[in-house]
Amino acid sequence: MSNNSQMDQKAANVIKGLIMDSIRKANSGHPGGSMSSADFAYVLYKDFLRYDPTNTNWLNRDRFVLAAGHESPLLYSILHLAGLITIEDLKQFRQLGSITPGHPEHDVTPGVEATSGPLGQGFCVGVGMATAEAFLNAKTNDDVVDHYSYVLSSDGDFQEPVSLGAASLAGLWKLGKLIVFYDSNDIQLAGPTCRCNCTDFRKVFEGMCWQVLEIDGHDHEAIRNAIKAGQAETGKPTLIIGKTKMAAGAATLEGCHSTHGSPLSNEEIAATKKGFGLPEDELFYVPEDVVTHFRSRFPDLKKLAADWQVKLDSVLAGNKEIADFWAESNKSRSDLKLNLPVFEAGQSVATRKAWGACLDAITDQLPTLLGGSADLDPSNQTANFRKKVGDFATDGYTSRNLAFGVREFPMSVILNGIALHGGVIPFGATFLTFSDYCRNGMRMSALQKLPVIYIYTHDSFYVGEDGPTHQPIEHVASLRLIPNHLVLRPADARETAACVEMALNQTDRPSSLMLTRQGLPVMSKEEFPQVEEGVKRGGYIVKDCEGKPDMIAIAAGSEVSLAIEAAAMIKDKKIRVVSMPSMELFEEQDQAYKDSVLDPTVRTRVAAEAGRPETWYKYVGLDGAVLGISHFGASAPAGQLAEKYGFTADNLAKIMKAQF
Amino acid sequence: MSNNSQMDQKAANVIKGLIMDSIRKANSGHPGGSMSSADFAYVLYKDFLRYDPTNTNWLNRDRFVLAAGHESPLLYSILHLAGLITIEDLKQFRQLGSITPGHPEHDVTPGVEATSGPLGQGFCVGVGMATAEAFLNAKTNDDVVDHYSYVLSSDGDFQEPVSLGAASLAGLWKLGKLIVFYDSNDIQLAGPTCRCNCTDFRKVFEGMCWQVLEIDGHDHEAIRNAIKAGQAETGKPTLIIGKTKMAAGAATLEGCHSTHGSPLSNEEIAATKKGFGLPEDELFYVPEDVVTHFRSRFPDLKKLAADWQVKLDSVLAGNKEIADFWAESNKSRSDLKLNLPVFEAGQSVATRKAWGACLDAITDQLPTLLGGSADLDPSNQTANFRKKVGDFATDGYTSRNLAFGVREFPMSVILNGIALHGGVIPFGATFLTFSDYCRNGMRMSALQKLPVIYIYTHDSFYVGEDGPTHQPIEHVASLRLIPNHLVLRPADARETAACVEMALNQTDRPSSLMLTRQGLPVMSKEEFPQVEEGVKRGGYIVKDCEGKPDMIAIAAGSEVSLAIEAAAMIKDKKIRVVSMPSMELFEEQDQAYKDSVLDPTVRTRVAAEAGRPETWYKYVGLDGAVLGISHFGASAPAGQLAEKYGFTADNLAKIMKAQF
Repeated sequence: MSNNSQMDQKAANVIKGLIMDSIRKANSGHPGGSMSSADFAYVLYKDFLRYDPTNTNWLNRDRFVLAAGHESPLLYSILHLAGLITIEDLKQFRQLGSITPGHPEHDVTPGVEATSGPLGQGFCVGVGMATAEAFLNAKTNDDVVDHYSYVLSSDGDFQEPVSLGAASLAGLWKLGKLIVFYDSNDIQLAGPTCRCNCTDFRKVFEGMCWQVLEIDGHDHEAIRNAIKAGQAETGKPTLIIGKTKMAAGAATLEGCHSTHGSPLSNEEIAATKKGFGLPEDELFYVPEDVVTHFRSRFPDLKKLAADWQVKLDSVLAGNKEIADFWAESNKSRSDLKLNLPVFEAGQSVATRKAWGACLDAITDQLPTLLGGSADLDPSNQTANFRKKVGDFATDGYTSRNLAFGVREFPMSVILNGIALHGGVIPFGATFLTFSDYCRNGMRMSALQKLPVIYIYTHDSFYVGEDGPTHQPIEHVASLRLIPNHLVLRPADARETAACVEMALNQTDRPSSLMLTRQGLPVMSKEEFPQVEEGVKRGGYIVKDCEGKPDMIAIAAGSEVSLAIEAAAMIKDKKIRVVSMPSMELFEEQDQAYKDSVLDPTVRTRVAAEAGRPETWYKYVGLDGAVLGISHFGASAPAGQLAEKYGFTADNLAKIMKAQF
Repeated sequence: MSNNSQMDQKAANVIKGLIMDSIRKANSGHPGGSMSSADFAYVLYKDFLRYDPTNTNWLNRDRFVLAAGHESPLLYSILHLAGLITIEDLKQFRQLGSITPGHPEHDVTPGVEATSGPLGQGFCVGVGMATAEAFLNAKTNDDVVDHYSYVLSSDGDFQEPVSLGAASLAGLWKLGKLIVFYDSNDIQLAGPTCRCNCTDFRKVFEGMCWQVLEIDGHDHEAIRNAIKAGQAETGKPTLIIGKTKMAAGAATLEGCHSTHGSPLSNEEIAATKKGFGLPEDELFYVPEDVVTHFRSRFPDLKKLAADWQVKLDSVLAGNKEIADFWAESNKSRSDLKLNLPVFEAGQSVATRKAWGACLDAITDQLPTLLGGSADLDPSNQTANFRKKVGDFATDGYTSRNLAFGVREFPMSVILNGIALHGGVIPFGATFLTFSDYCRNGMRMSALQKLPVIYIYTHDSFYVGEDGPTHQPIEHVASLRLIPNHLVLRPADARETAACVEMALNQTDRPSSLMLTRQGLPVMSKEEFPQVEEGVKRGGYIVKDCEGKPDMIAIAAGSEVSLAIEAAAMIKDKKIRVVSMPSMELFEEQDQAYKDSVLDPTVRTRVAAEAGRPETWYKYVGLDGAVLGISHFGASAPAGQLAEKYGFTADNLAKIMKAQF
């Protein structure tokens, strides 16, 4: 530390003072890691990070992700020095309605690029941001988008395997503008890392095609040199392993794991400040010279942003191809007009195949569509997309297929990073049963209001021979429970196209399409004219009776055609059949519409879905019945399973009749 | 291959013939990897694996996990040579009711040790088995339990990050009797592995403290030498990277990724058999000399098992300590008698603390209890356990605390491996919100009928300051949807003790305890005498009214005391309050009991739970109301959030009144 300039050291110490004070005031937070990472974060922001302090949304800014989200007071303290948040905000740390929540939230605080906290994911978000950058950089001839993505990760982040999966892809994709700092303080919540780790991360990351540097993470010059070396290495992502001390500088608790998750005592804080040469009794102390020093690069930063705008204007004026692409890249997703395939009635089309046909159709219409499958390209119907656009990085950085390999969780979080970066439309595909692997990544899509598109094929026991490990039972229902997440389970090819359009037009939430492996009859325009409009409402009358119904039958996905068939078998009763591709969209309709579909005076109701029944009781109530499945499936041809589990029109008709 | 003995090569070819034939007959399956792995699996079973062909449950058998579950025809073919399944079984591959399902299922087929298919998990199961072995080995002085755990993994398994997380633990824990074969055929479902992988697995695994060997995976002598080297290295687990060819030996399709997931054509099969020197037209060909050769070690194997029994009897007779432990280790879990702490009314006790007190109490009572936290020891209340018993491996192999680090998904699957091994009671703990990371591991606990115990603390928005990333909203409800999984959300310390007892007494399903961070009032024995018996029923009347109720209020967990309080505020109505710690247990009661709790004639109902409301509509119907929460939380002190989200007795009483 002695090599650090006096002013830089003072600034780092002031930041640590703010960290200790804000955590102490909230009586809650994580000082240890915030302090061990402070030198790196300070040097990065002070000397390297390119951002516009007057416009945190500048498109070509460097991205910084605080993967170790519990170190939020560090980030907030720096954002204060940058003039983006106030001392009052720091004083409101972890309080209701403040812009300084316990973990960083990208939609709450200016200058925060990602919501972090669930360990491992911030690292993957950085990979996603660097992926988006590499694609947009290549599409704009290295002239418009050209920035670094930085990540600050902790020991816990690297223990989470999801980060290793994303690291492997970053290495393969040669994401040279991704620079990750590993705050290696050897301490985690429950004790020293050696209790649960023997990993040599240099070896592991070199084995995953990264440049790895090891430095003293408190030495500012070493940090600078490492960042420069990371920038100089353009063919590999860079991991800077910074050996640091937990709660670095704390008077008596430096190196102690007790500092991980609890405020330091007032005595410890005072003694630490004294050691730092800061006024012991002053809370939230920020001397003017530190602010001035921190902002010494501001004129350059503002010029950078202004120069970029000039350059952008000139590029757009001079290159129609880039200008067109840029317009697409910056278009709002809420009003996409798409030409989607028309499906003819009378065919049997698996909804996954309908999705594949839609993907074929939109590949050229949406030049910013970037995505792929977790090694299930043919099954997920992304193989044509890949053939047409090539594999990202492997076939060049304008290639749009992301070959994720068998890495569902890294896929979902990389998609979040891509979405957070902006300028592209990200999608990812796997079997529905493996949505389990993605689950917290999806939750983070939803929490961060990111319009990521998840394609989940093979959506029920109709998977057949692959057996219970591959047959979703609880998945459709359980994904409906993630807040701010659109679950779309289309009933046929036409509903699929409408659902694809719906998912593409989202701006602030993820969508998941649940698609069949097996063929389903395509509804005719004549008999079912309302399909496309109905899907927009989430639930609609797909087949009505004359006059007031004796029963309402509600179904989703592959069970809609079954319900129509079963209803037709009951001649002496008037049965309305409702298709409900999306409960979330239906719930958003006004009460009058909802009542027009689910007439509240008709209490005789049946629902059918090849999955857990729980989410349907809301619509059928105590008196209704649900044809669902609450046990695991089995390995057998799908038709035989349908028979065994009662998913036949005969059986559904029997259940319906029993309600009268 | 030329170095292989003629007879061994013939046997391997016969196995490949069975693989091709069974997949062709089913018209579904994965020949490519099954054939590339055949040499290793054959040599392992033929020359090394210690098992009792007459008793597949022999306790000290070597364990073998086919992590690449899609290669099941390989395993089935070998089990046929071992006399454990018939040719008829092979002909029924992937058919309804057969013992040869698409992916191996441990409870369906003799000789199958684990249900596999979801990639990456089989590897972790192997780590879990080796963990259980190391513990039991140490507890029995290396005299009773002493076997290897073998795993056969594919490219996909190593791309799944969960395997890297478990590898890191296996290296740290120095699991010298774990030997993993990596069938490195460079081909996966969607193409060559180089499309999505640049990882040097030698470097990565050496970086994780493994011994790594690289061999020609078709060379039998090389395989033998590698297995021997793995056995010789007692301080590290061993990874044998076997370079192989996809669909090895196929006439024209060797090396092609099209062989991954589709049957070979009849022509390809015939030509391949011809190349192998097998009769081209004969299906399911198994010559007697191959059977005899394969079983040449059978007399030795039977003697091994018999000798072990003699040794066991002698050890048990001569060493009381081991004999007592062994009795515990082999006891059925269905009739555990436990002394659990008694909690006094009038206190406020977080249910996580009640769990901690229970754990303290049972640590000595259950000497086979093995488990730990994903680096949240103090938060999950496992820190005392750790202090008392020490960290597994680090502090010796009889130490029972598993320091998983921040690796929730590896934790859950390692627990499955421990449970599959048998002889121990495994548990794992983390924050409820990170159950997302474990989700498919939990599903596999449930599918495999494994009584793993999951401890999930911090079960709602009452987490408070840590904010929305750490506040479960959808988790309790969504975990209720996993089939064969017991969700227990106790209302106070007494219910917690009863739930702990319930979880420990399960034999064929996992349990998850949802526990509060915040304190909850302990119910008094006098006012609430029925708590302990009620918990066993899943739902019970915790506070009744005189005569027929005007309303039934149902709640779980932290909302039970709220419901009792709210009900007491409504003087002019008769309100019955039901505590429902487990919907699964309640559903298992007879109709008379269920009706006695939820009187079907009382339709005015309200439910309350600090989470998604969906699972409650089954009980409150179309006319009822649910106080739940369907949006993400926020970072703030918990009490303020409760106020904001309406989780106050006042607000619940208001909702109740509005129902009349």
